Amino acid sequence: MNVVVPHLRVVPQPGSPSPLRHVIEAQQFTVPLLMDLFDRTRLMERIVARGGTLDYQNRILAALFYQPSTRTRFSFESAMYRLGGRVLSTEHARVFSSEIEGEQVEDSIRVIGNYADVIVIRHPEEGGAQRAAQVSPVPVISAGDGNGGQHPTQALLDLYTIYRERPLNGLTIAFIGELDRARTARSLAYLLAKFDRMKIFFVSPPELQVKPDILEYLERHGVQYELETNFEAVAGEADVIYQTRIRPERLTGIQDPRQYAIDSGILRRMKGNAMILHPLPRTVELDKSVDDDPRALYFRQAINGLYVRMALLTMLLDSCR
Amino acid sequence: MNVVVPHLRVVPQPGSPSPLRHVIEAQQFTVPLLMDLFDRTRLMERIVARGGTLDYQNRILAALFYQPSTRTRFSFESAMYRLGGRVLSTEHARVFSSEIEGEQVEDSIRVIGNYADVIVIRHPEEGGAQRAAQVSPVPVISAGDGNGGQHPTQALLDLYTIYRERPLNGLTIAFIGELDRARTARSLAYLLAKFDRMKIFFVSPPELQVKPDILEYLERHGVQYELETNFEAVAGEADVIYQTRIRPERLTGIQDPRQYAIDSGILRRMKGNAMILHPLPRTVELDKSVDDDPRALYFRQAINGLYVRMALLTMLLDSCR
Amino acid sequence: MNVVVPHLRVVPQPGSPSPLRHVIEAQQFTVPLLMDLFDRTRLMERIVARGGTLDYQNRILAALFYQPSTRTRFSFESAMYRLGGRVLSTEHARVFSSEIEGEQVEDSIRVIGNYADVIVIRHPEEGGAQRAAQVSPVPVISAGDGNGGQHPTQALLDLYTIYRERPLNGLTIAFIGELDRARTARSLAYLLAKFDRMKIFFVSPPELQVKPDILEYLERHGVQYELETNFEAVAGEADVIYQTRIRPERLTGIQDPRQYAIDSGILRRMKGNAMILHPLPRTVELDKSVDDDPRALYFRQAINGLYVRMALLTMLLDSCR
Repeated sequence: MNVVVPHLRVVPQPGSPSPLRHVIEAQQFTVPLLMDLFDRTRLMERIVARGGTLDYQNRILAALFYQPSTRTRFSFESAMYRLGGRVLSTEHARVFSSEIEGEQVEDSIRVIGNYADVIVIRHPEEGGAQRAAQVSPVPVISAGDGNGGQHPTQALLDLYTIYRERPLNGLTIAFIGELDRARTARSLAYLLAKFDRMKIFFVSPPELQVKPDILEYLERHGVQYELETNFEAVAGEADVIYQTRIRPERLTGIQDPRQYAIDSGILRRMKGNAMILHPLPRTVELDKSVDDDPRALYFRQAINGLYVRMALLTMLLDSCR
Repeated sequence: MNVVVPHLRVVPQPGSPSPLRHVIEAQQFTVPLLMDLFDRTRLMERIVARGGTLDYQNRILAALFYQPSTRTRFSFESAMYRLGGRVLSTEHARVFSSEIEGEQVEDSIRVIGNYADVIVIRHPEEGGAQRAAQVSPVPVISAGDGNGGQHPTQALLDLYTIYRERPLNGLTIAFIGELDRARTARSLAYLLAKFDRMKIFFVSPPELQVKPDILEYLERHGVQYELETNFEAVAGEADVIYQTRIRPERLTGIQDPRQYAIDSGILRRMKGNAMILHPLPRTVELDKSVDDDPRALYFRQAINGLYVRMALLTMLLDSCR
Repeated sequence: MNVVVPHLRVVPQPGSPSPLRHVIEAQQFTVPLLMDLFDRTRLMERIVARGGTLDYQNRILAALFYQPSTRTRFSFESAMYRLGGRVLSTEHARVFSSEIEGEQVEDSIRVIGNYADVIVIRHPEEGGAQRAAQVSPVPVISAGDGNGGQHPTQALLDLYTIYRERPLNGLTIAFIGELDRARTARSLAYLLAKFDRMKIFFVSPPELQVKPDILEYLERHGVQYELETNFEAVAGEADVIYQTRIRPERLTGIQDPRQYAIDSGILRRMKGNAMILHPLPRTVELDKSVDDDPRALYFRQAINGLYVRMALLTMLLDSCR
């Protein structure tokens, strides 16, 4: 079945959020904009389920990855294809030219902005996506920048995954792992702060704890949070357990990576209706035995990533027509 | 001309082969399934010749190559395009994430299975494609796994190339080269064993001979075979000479790689209606002077690869609708 | 808006240029062929501006890059998409097979010629594109070969950029930079030689000057040229300043790379209606402060590259139907 659905134009309503231009950091998203995005996302779910498509066939997405990340790249590219569009793609943008080193992202964007209608960039430096957006003639979406930067579209799909299960207020969320480098956790914390009566636990060895900028943001927005080192102590309280990668080599000799892993003991302590999220890929912190637990939603996150990115692309492409 | 042909649905006939789910090894293919595939392949030849296409425009193929193989990848991707479909592609899946090592193929497949309708995988380990198929929500096609594994679609196109020239029975086939690592020869031997009165010569230095698992399979299926070291001795008997790569550094000092190469002496001994096949790329074992011989079919194999893969994709995509 | 425009068939007119088969070097282009190309290019500009497309949806372009060059590759691929077509792509064709070294481009082309309707090749050796064209069953376009070879489509877009501003006769053009390796400057010099009353300055340190083959060509075609080392001396005379990359490490100790750079002093000396071209990427020879000067056309070159390549693809694809 080939269902063709017409463009979803952003019809400006009184009080509606202003159209998106670029997607660089999670803080950009207001609650009304998130709700608009999630409405579109539900619609995308239905269109894909029916085997339908949309009529963006003359629009081109450029995936400009300075570091390979096949899954994130495929997620965006598949989203563009499901909308009917086309894709330009590189996962080695760092070797942009065979001849010179040190080329700047700004020139690349100004050139590629002539060849594509939207650019998805993964950049190794914090602020790389922002630099791209400043000069781009077309919308730029960050697909992650730097180790301690953000990954806003991952946070959007994480939030949507929670939202599909439970209303977005009064939730307790525990982030576990190497939180100083967990850009997905950073971005999601910014989004959670926009909703009411949220409580956040950050569970990590002290030297790998989340950076102060996040905590300051939460304080400014009146969000309750606690820093923890003991996963077991909070496992029973959390509505959402957001596990991130642990590289054992980053732990000191006295720490056991299993302290920050989900195992059968943690599963027993967890609430019956809790959700386990993980941005993937995983290392030692999330055993495959957890995959069969009904609370494990990390593969659901992957499919939601498709729908959220489709919805986001329609927003950006419609607003720049 | 833009001929649009409707889907070729697998209409279950009494006694028809059961629909394919994954393509992992040549042994999967029964003779009726092969004949069904080859009928579809002929149809694909005609559609491409007319400049036509099919209506798979909402279907996405993901090419997930852990090792680069531009030709095989392009062959699959072109097949998907000629069907009207879309393509996600990586030839460096090994560096799947920029941040961690040792990620397992299973998680990648479970995620990518959300973004594509069929996955083509080239994996460096024997059994890698099988592991992928076991967890995949969508059909998986092996595009080669391991040095001593299989390359089933290459064998299908090889067999189709023979079938286009001659009925598939009573043929004598000589495989020449480094047969211990020739996964294309391995896969083709499995297919040949399904037909009547086939005779196979394996011509190779003893230390590079085909592995015992193939020979045991042939014995179980009553196929006559002989191990040979002397190419000249069998060149005159073969209906098909299947030459594979020889890396001179794998031969011992006393052996001359030219012993296992096709040269003017071999050409003179060969039957007038014999066929020369080679999976390409070639090194020293197949001189360019052979290209003009009318018995040389190795570039014909390449175009047949397109048609066979188109046909195979229609089988897989139709059966999972 | 989705404007579909029918094929632009090459209708042979009395005295019209013969159809193009391959695009390997700038010398191939006669003035009538250039004018035909530029007419098509103008049409492409209008089609893209209207958000339209053409009906090449069953045609496939293969981008076969032996060296990465994301921008040039994206320019060709975007052009094919804007025509409605499909794209096969690799930027690591050198590792064409995971198993062998030293494979020759000829076999690759003969195989890929079955999978695509046109091949764009970037090859590291001078003559690589010509070797490809000699065996290809489909049109081949060089996207640059060797350090001292050519880059004909860059020269076509450069010439088109000049042509959009000024009639192509009686112009003074100054090439600045490492001219011995500037394949874009080499290709453009060949094109300029086809027009009347052109004067060319080659401004470079003597040891990096343009190679004699170009000068001999200009002499044979009666084009006036001068070799210069002093940029300031010619900046005021030029209608077009074509700046190319300078790698400071190639200059001897006594030379200052700023001698061959565009700075505020050069800008003041330049004619008010001069044009500054640069093939990009840039290093030290072109400061970002120049970007805002209305005479700077190098980002205009990038968008013109899209239109020229669209036009060129229609010529090649129409002529081989």
